[in-house]
Amino acid sequence: MDLELITIGDELLLGFTVDTNAVHIARTLADRGVRITRRATVGDTPADIVDAVRTALDRTGAVLTTGGLGPTADDRTHESLALAFDRELVLNETARDVLAERWLQRFGRPMPDSNVRQFLLPKGADVLTNRHGSAPGIWLEDSAGRFVATMPGVPREMRGMLLEEIVPRLQARAGATATTVVRSRTLRTTGISESACADRLAELCGAVHDVPLSYLPGLDGVDLRLTVNGVPAADADATLERAAHTVRERVGDWIYGEGDDDLAAIVLDALRAHGHTIAVAESCTGGLLGGRLTAISGSSSQVLGGIIAYDNRIKVEQLGVPESLLAEHGAVSEPVALAMASGVRERFGADVGVGITGIAGPGGGSDAKPVGTVWVAVDVSGVVHAVKPVLPGDRGEIRHRATQIALDRLRRVYASTSSVPGWTVGGA
Amino acid sequence: MDLELITIGDELLLGFTVDTNAVHIARTLADRGVRITRRATVGDTPADIVDAVRTALDRTGAVLTTGGLGPTADDRTHESLALAFDRELVLNETARDVLAERWLQRFGRPMPDSNVRQFLLPKGADVLTNRHGSAPGIWLEDSAGRFVATMPGVPREMRGMLLEEIVPRLQARAGATATTVVRSRTLRTTGISESACADRLAELCGAVHDVPLSYLPGLDGVDLRLTVNGVPAADADATLERAAHTVRERVGDWIYGEGDDDLAAIVLDALRAHGHTIAVAESCTGGLLGGRLTAISGSSSQVLGGIIAYDNRIKVEQLGVPESLLAEHGAVSEPVALAMASGVRERFGADVGVGITGIAGPGGGSDAKPVGTVWVAVDVSGVVHAVKPVLPGDRGEIRHRATQIALDRLRRVYASTSSVPGWTVGGA
Repeated sequence: MDLELITIGDELLLGFTVDTNAVHIARTLADRGVRITRRATVGDTPADIVDAVRTALDRTGAVLTTGGLGPTADDRTHESLALAFDRELVLNETARDVLAERWLQRFGRPMPDSNVRQFLLPKGADVLTNRHGSAPGIWLEDSAGRFVATMPGVPREMRGMLLEEIVPRLQARAGATATTVVRSRTLRTTGISESACADRLAELCGAVHDVPLSYLPGLDGVDLRLTVNGVPAADADATLERAAHTVRERVGDWIYGEGDDDLAAIVLDALRAHGHTIAVAESCTGGLLGGRLTAISGSSSQVLGGIIAYDNRIKVEQLGVPESLLAEHGAVSEPVALAMASGVRERFGADVGVGITGIAGPGGGSDAKPVGTVWVAVDVSGVVHAVKPVLPGDRGEIRHRATQIALDRLRRVYASTSSVPGWTVGGA
Repeated sequence: MDLELITIGDELLLGFTVDTNAVHIARTLADRGVRITRRATVGDTPADIVDAVRTALDRTGAVLTTGGLGPTADDRTHESLALAFDRELVLNETARDVLAERWLQRFGRPMPDSNVRQFLLPKGADVLTNRHGSAPGIWLEDSAGRFVATMPGVPREMRGMLLEEIVPRLQARAGATATTVVRSRTLRTTGISESACADRLAELCGAVHDVPLSYLPGLDGVDLRLTVNGVPAADADATLERAAHTVRERVGDWIYGEGDDDLAAIVLDALRAHGHTIAVAESCTGGLLGGRLTAISGSSSQVLGGIIAYDNRIKVEQLGVPESLLAEHGAVSEPVALAMASGVRERFGADVGVGITGIAGPGGGSDAKPVGTVWVAVDVSGVVHAVKPVLPGDRGEIRHRATQIALDRLRRVYASTSSVPGWTVGGA
């Protein structure tokens, strides 16, 4: 089943509000076999609402809207629908009386007159109850079975109405016809570029076993999303599994997880499996790696803590980095990163130490060490290893990417050996 | 000037991605007198892209798009525009060669073949340079002067192209005609609830000097946004200034800044003004306060670093917190927070120390210390002070709010005294 979504509100067009409703509605419906094929956003202007609704009805015949149901003068969705369907606006007294009664009970005073406006609805509309707010939605259908259903713009109210009122009606319409679903699976890579991914998957031409493949580059790396669309629910998972298997074969160990997997959680699992503890020494990332590790609930059994050694004096005093190394190689150098990793490991009595030192910018770069130059070192039970990526992006992006690289080095250490202390330098 | 925006991508329709670009574009253009009158979102399907572009061209004649410019097979915006404008696709060799050269310089290897696809552009299109990524945008105009300009979907790339390439072209088109603007001003508060703000501003009834006022609660606190709409550019700032002045009078020192002001930057400015250095000791926040401070470019002159003391042993060994305090009061207690703040200040030789210890959840709470209980201590030149908020939200929200509270305590210390070492306990 295909649907169009129209989100209504000047605040959406002006950019004052991020349209999170659209995301929630699409995800909720996709897993129930309903696909949003188009989305339009219009302001609180009847002519624009009417035009968007008529176009969507002609194209798809099934329309959801959010927004513009409230009691104020700029809420004009229902009057616009009356125009679009050529119906009168009539006062729904039953719905009004229910709210007036709730209002009195809840606030101990009569409902203000301004609220009555919300119950002027196109003739013939079914009322959709709003259990989380005052404005009702409606389900309005023409003689050809084409329909518009309206929901409030307030996310909590919209979510309740979607689940309690809209989804059951959509399912009733779909009836006994076998429902097909949209379902997706995302493989997460890090350390490999979008184009290098594409080269590995080139001859698959964007589709793996007829499952379309999308590349989604982000700060954590490139996510590879496989999507089945219009497939019977019973087949969807097996089809996705076959496609994911092929992608895994081609892309290999650049893939660190799936879906919402966070590399920090994956690293913590590996540490836990080995009974290892970790401590971090951070310069340019200033605590972000510690922040990512401790964002995971239960991390306290593995994470001892760390040293934020932003100032070079702190690297010397708190981590034992020899001043001679700083003088000879500079703070952003392999020997300093290694000394930081080993220093924090020893001082904290941890199994694993990580050292990060780099130039996050925007200042501080040079020809030899441009902005984005980062040294990441890991010391796992005394076996050390360092890498020097040159990371793209602004200050925030470089810092986040540096934490991802550090976590990925650790993931690879634990993935590449069953006996970590015997791991050899450069083996990852 | 009116414009329509078309955001392109299956991931937007499926709800995998929140359309933050639409927000950024609307805000950036509104302040320059350009209004987005419609927004459409379509998938990576040429027929839908062509239909949306043609409809928008017929209606408004001025269209921006985001997304679908990359090197992979599902990036189909430019081929769709060639169809919509009935033009051939031709390889833009100049743009290709520029990227190939940049690629070689940066990565030391030739650009992969798959990247060439990005330079197949509709004939007659002007190339819009992408300084932050590889995919170029285009400006495509027909003989009637109707145009479409394309931007990448990656936010950083889109933002650069919007400011550097699109805005100057739009301004050149608008010429010397007088424009009215939509402009807003946001005052940022922290530590005061939305309803307490509303009580202080109650008799203003949501509008201050006819300027509508919105409350925007978020993790950093409640932002208060004043908006003028359809006002001549010359009057907008003075009108907003009068309204902001009134709000400041009512809300007072709960306001810490305006617009995008980050409390971390404000605290760093105060430290810099006093020539003070800072060190942090973090337990439940695990490095996030250090991360926020060092996110600010130039923070290295004030931020020495810190200790992430996630494990209690680290609190004892690295911060000198007496074991007896931990045994008697528990890790989440005023004496431990104070000992952490003073410990890190002394060990790092800083002027200011901050200690944060709390229960971020979801586990670990008790009746006496529920999840969200956080002790935040500051030690400014030996004068100490602690607060114990009980913070709402999930683990991530509690941790972020704890960093905001710590920063706000520091802001108030420096705001409340001209001679910080003489500051008295509880004075903030």
